[in-house]
Amino acid sequence: MRYDIAVIGTGPAGISAAITGKIRNKSILLLGSADLSEKIEKAHQILNYPGLPAISGKELSEKLKEHLSSMDIRITPERVNAVYAMGDYFVLQTGKAMYEARSVILASGVIQGKALDGEKELLGRGVSYCVTCDAQFYKNKTAAIISYNKETEAEADFLAEIAEKVYYFPMYKNDPQVSDKVQIMQENPVAVKAMEVSSETPGIVKLEGVQTEADLLPVDGVFIMRDSIPPQQLVPGLAMDGNHVSVNLKMETNIPGCFACGDITGKPYQYIRAAGQGNTAVLSAVAWLSEMDRKEKQKEDNSK
Amino acid sequence: MRYDIAVIGTGPAGISAAITGKIRNKSILLLGSADLSEKIEKAHQILNYPGLPAISGKELSEKLKEHLSSMDIRITPERVNAVYAMGDYFVLQTGKAMYEARSVILASGVIQGKALDGEKELLGRGVSYCVTCDAQFYKNKTAAIISYNKETEAEADFLAEIAEKVYYFPMYKNDPQVSDKVQIMQENPVAVKAMEVSSETPGIVKLEGVQTEADLLPVDGVFIMRDSIPPQQLVPGLAMDGNHVSVNLKMETNIPGCFACGDITGKPYQYIRAAGQGNTAVLSAVAWLSEMDRKEKQKEDNSK
Repeated sequence: MRYDIAVIGTGPAGISAAITGKIRNKSILLLGSADLSEKIEKAHQILNYPGLPAISGKELSEKLKEHLSSMDIRITPERVNAVYAMGDYFVLQTGKAMYEARSVILASGVIQGKALDGEKELLGRGVSYCVTCDAQFYKNKTAAIISYNKETEAEADFLAEIAEKVYYFPMYKNDPQVSDKVQIMQENPVAVKAMEVSSETPGIVKLEGVQTEADLLPVDGVFIMRDSIPPQQLVPGLAMDGNHVSVNLKMETNIPGCFACGDITGKPYQYIRAAGQGNTAVLSAVAWLSEMDRKEKQKEDNSK
Repeated sequence: MRYDIAVIGTGPAGISAAITGKIRNKSILLLGSADLSEKIEKAHQILNYPGLPAISGKELSEKLKEHLSSMDIRITPERVNAVYAMGDYFVLQTGKAMYEARSVILASGVIQGKALDGEKELLGRGVSYCVTCDAQFYKNKTAAIISYNKETEAEADFLAEIAEKVYYFPMYKNDPQVSDKVQIMQENPVAVKAMEVSSETPGIVKLEGVQTEADLLPVDGVFIMRDSIPPQQLVPGLAMDGNHVSVNLKMETNIPGCFACGDITGKPYQYIRAAGQGNTAVLSAVAWLSEMDRKEKQKEDNSK
């Protein structure tokens, strides 16, 4: 099945987009967390979501969930690892499956934690954002996981079944619950290091390990597991404005059929702004789909 | 008193701006209708305001009113007739008073009914948007009122106390309740007509009357009373994009310190989009005020 619109992210932006997209009779694939958004869940009190005065994050989250279920919109609880523009449709790769959609809305929020030194340069050359995708490369090898969320603990256990040794850097408060085969690290990682393979081939580098504040931990691979992947890594060719996705007032990105909304597009990071942008983004997607249909029909008519 | 931020309009955009402005500790002048927005009040059911599934317009309106009163934000129920940029502050003129504010947020929605032929050209030369302001010019003269709302009926009665004759064109469904001195017209006005004063001074024109579908009604002046005034008439020098105020992603207009949000900035006309833009606009105003304070302080420091 090819969906009309894939929405990546279950914060207020993604939820708003999904709701209005459904109202406009489009088939929607909503990818994100069944708990919606950790940021909202943890918000003590939200004072400026008009119509819901002084609401707690937990209550807002419940209300958004009710809104989704009242409209029979289901969440596919998978993290998207890559989005490929195929011309007149997109392929979305998650850890579990591949999906197709005619248009994509990026609403995955801001990335917590800035990129580590060396992270971008070594992506695909020892640095990975997806355990499920790349675990098989670490048979009889060592790997480190730098993790920003508890969900990654299960992936660490899985990686430990394959790799010789797994080091786990928890970047969050909760005590990690991992199998004995995973070694929990107390140090803070600061960089991913590489070395030249040979002095005869300058520029050809090989991953060396994780540099912590204390010392260098030599490993063959490093998995960096944030709640979301930096947008420019997620969608190859996506134009950025600093750390944010570059959009216009219609929430169009530089890639036709790909839209963005919410914190991913920049400050201010505000729930109601995100919800508003989600609405604009999906209505732009709906207009874009009509335009594509019209062009398709014209082509068919012309070839008759 | 000079307010930090004047917000013009009490739809979701203006309300959102006022709420977040208040949270940011700014003094807010919120100008609009005590009933908030006729458009919301009349909405049968709103399906896509995230967090408030399948809410009626009346209920949403009530919730927004509760939100305002819970934060002790009061509405000043006056229509703004003009906004003048004075350099480092603005003057807002209503039918009743003059107000000062350091920044202005335009959130008065879209104008119902397109401009009549001749309306723009003759504004200030026989066409007026404000009975209170200009009634005194019509002593012993005749005037027509083209009215889009019931509130204008009281102004028609007032004008009839001064003018020799008042013709009233109701552009709404409800039966107008006006004094016997006001003549209610059944025809539809289509244009405001002018004639040259003399063949010796071509281009110098004088108002001739209201052209209806049937004939020409000769009058000395025409009042056109919509719920809001076309933005470019309201704020001299405001840059437009077609019929909408031109803004960037920060909701800045071309006039420093003047921001816009909601339907006034363009389609899609959606409540949640408007609320989101109101949030962005007021946070841009807050940032602008800080910047002005910083510059002011620097100037003071330099002159010491």
